Amino acid sequence: MKKHITLLPGDGIGPEIVAAAKKVLDVINERYDYEFTSEEQDIGGIAIDKTGNPLPEETIKACENSDAILLGAVGGPKWANQSVRPEQGLLKIRKHFNLFANLRPVTIFDALESSSPLKKEIVQGSDLMIVRELTGGLYFGQPSERRDNGKSVIDSLTYTRDEIERIVKIGFDTAMLRDKHLTSVDKANVLESSRMWREIVDEIGKEYPEVTVSHVLVDAAAMKLITNPKSFDVIVTENLFGDILSDEASVITGSLGVLPSASLNQDNFGLYEPIHGSAPDIAGLGKANPIGMILSVGMMLKYSFNLESEAAKIEEAVNKVLNDGYVTADLMSDDGQVLSTMEMTDKIISYL
Amino acid sequence: MKKHITLLPGDGIGPEIVAAAKKVLDVINERYDYEFTSEEQDIGGIAIDKTGNPLPEETIKACENSDAILLGAVGGPKWANQSVRPEQGLLKIRKHFNLFANLRPVTIFDALESSSPLKKEIVQGSDLMIVRELTGGLYFGQPSERRDNGKSVIDSLTYTRDEIERIVKIGFDTAMLRDKHLTSVDKANVLESSRMWREIVDEIGKEYPEVTVSHVLVDAAAMKLITNPKSFDVIVTENLFGDILSDEASVITGSLGVLPSASLNQDNFGLYEPIHGSAPDIAGLGKANPIGMILSVGMMLKYSFNLESEAAKIEEAVNKVLNDGYVTADLMSDDGQVLSTMEMTDKIISYL
Ligand SMILES: CC(C)[C@H](C(=O)O)[C@@H](O)C(=O)O
Ligand SMILES: CC(C)[C@H](C(=O)O)[C@@H](O)C(=O)O
Repeated sequence: MKKHITLLPGDGIGPEIVAAAKKVLDVINERYDYEFTSEEQDIGGIAIDKTGNPLPEETIKACENSDAILLGAVGGPKWANQSVRPEQGLLKIRKHFNLFANLRPVTIFDALESSSPLKKEIVQGSDLMIVRELTGGLYFGQPSERRDNGKSVIDSLTYTRDEIERIVKIGFDTAMLRDKHLTSVDKANVLESSRMWREIVDEIGKEYPEVTVSHVLVDAAAMKLITNPKSFDVIVTENLFGDILSDEASVITGSLGVLPSASLNQDNFGLYEPIHGSAPDIAGLGKANPIGMILSVGMMLKYSFNLESEAAKIEEAVNKVLNDGYVTADLMSDDGQVLSTMEMTDKIISYL
Repeated sequence: MKKHITLLPGDGIGPEIVAAAKKVLDVINERYDYEFTSEEQDIGGIAIDKTGNPLPEETIKACENSDAILLGAVGGPKWANQSVRPEQGLLKIRKHFNLFANLRPVTIFDALESSSPLKKEIVQGSDLMIVRELTGGLYFGQPSERRDNGKSVIDSLTYTRDEIERIVKIGFDTAMLRDKHLTSVDKANVLESSRMWREIVDEIGKEYPEVTVSHVLVDAAAMKLITNPKSFDVIVTENLFGDILSDEASVITGSLGVLPSASLNQDNFGLYEPIHGSAPDIAGLGKANPIGMILSVGMMLKYSFNLESEAAKIEEAVNKVLNDGYVTADLMSDDGQVLSTMEMTDKIISYL
């Protein structure tokens, strides 16, 4: 198998963790006799510094000529108060490649259970997948502007039926591969878009008789994620609700640094990135946790390259390393052995 | 002091807890020689059943002729799948009386600390107030409709400068009476309305030099409420973000049933209600927790009638009852004595 991957290290700890990802890719190359090639391109703050543009043409071209994208992180205080901001690169790349399906697994690793802010009996055994719509809704709806000489403002939450249908289908397909329970989150008691969303979920649900469907309001979902995270299997929801709920869900694990994500288009072309941010405070110190990034490589192998067993190998290796008590500085642990970014990467590779 | 109050029992457990509120009011009447009169009117599902309208004219008239409104709860599965729904009564009454400022204190009662889903060391000592904008944003913005023969849909997040200014001021004023720290929550990296919101917070902040201000993105706020609730004092945010975050914040206390809320207009006229729902499953069984409702009476005394010390008395009585180990069925407790709705009410009254 031959694949070309664009690496977008980005800002903060991005370069360190993408270097870790590359090392893992190289090992997979050797072990399995694949030909994974890669090139680095700029996105986010570093791209603004070099070109004034958070997503330069060259980066887009490179991604277009690739089979997948691995992203580190973008953003930082340096660029926070300018009109051109690093996150715009992220929003643009999602839209450009039509990466409408954001998959965020929220897994509690046995070894890290004690890091959760939740009580053990509540969090234990939680395992859910959030399917977030990523290229519609308030993030891209027009009009989005000041009006009346700055006396008022409007943003628009827009969806087409097709946009809702395709993400809802991904929700059902994902549920079919898991515990066959889909929770659709909306605010149907207030929003017309949510009422349409709910109708579409019910329509498409007819094609998936094995999947049980619950409709939960977004405020109730925000509560239930804390009081009973185990009750969820797959959550499907629109862009902004997904943004809020997936971040909320990820902290209940107590280990943000180990969680990956995939953003896919209709053809399973995708951008893979850890869910944590650029952590500028620890950038360059070799302290960053590479696990979220390495598990993102695993998701790439699974979703874009159909290499299920290789992806599972990576997950297993991570699990073993954690079970053997190895951690990085971000993971609270009483008796774990704290490794640097590269030591952790090498340890995982040694278990592969 | 003479005051007339409209009681809106509503649905589910609403009538039981409003009866509890009335009993407390009667006692305050006697003890302090006030003249609090009241009348009951319909709202929500029961109003739909009787008149087809979740907020009948008669109810509006009665509220207009009152000094405050006490609401139990609205809604239930009975009315969930109709086009006229109980919640519409709630949205209409908020809009009609311009109740733009929703105050939701999130308090951890010492006696209930162990009911929190969060670990003790994280939740202990948390005490925050959420100031939610209640009559603008996506809840009321136009257009909100299907388009292209049902092929697309739009909701609108609209705000005028005035609407943002007045709620932000309430946020600052609230902070001045507390620990002088205001967290403004927005999604300024994506929404134009949030960028305007942030500018206004910074402008108005100049008039409150003693208040420290943090701007936090809504996804980050959803995380921080779980990982570090103690870091918040007052949160001010727009309608939908406030809906999600205030519900999220309330479950970290582990005692939804004891939390009150106030929804105020510019003249401190207000609607007071517990934050829990109508709990149709336990309606009529005498199991409902009256504390959220009774503390809402306390908020009414404080915010609409300026009776600070009477309000404090109610809070103290509730605290004492809980500290003495009395609970209702909803409050998990290993060794507490479980009381019915009316027993709990009488117990609180006996401590007044
Ligand atoms: C950086 C920001 C625009 C982005 C989003 O809101 O989608 C981020 O929070 C995320 O979840 O990937
Ligand atoms: C019932 C519903 C419309 C309402 C809201 O979303 O405002 C409720 O969730 C609340 O928070 O009071």
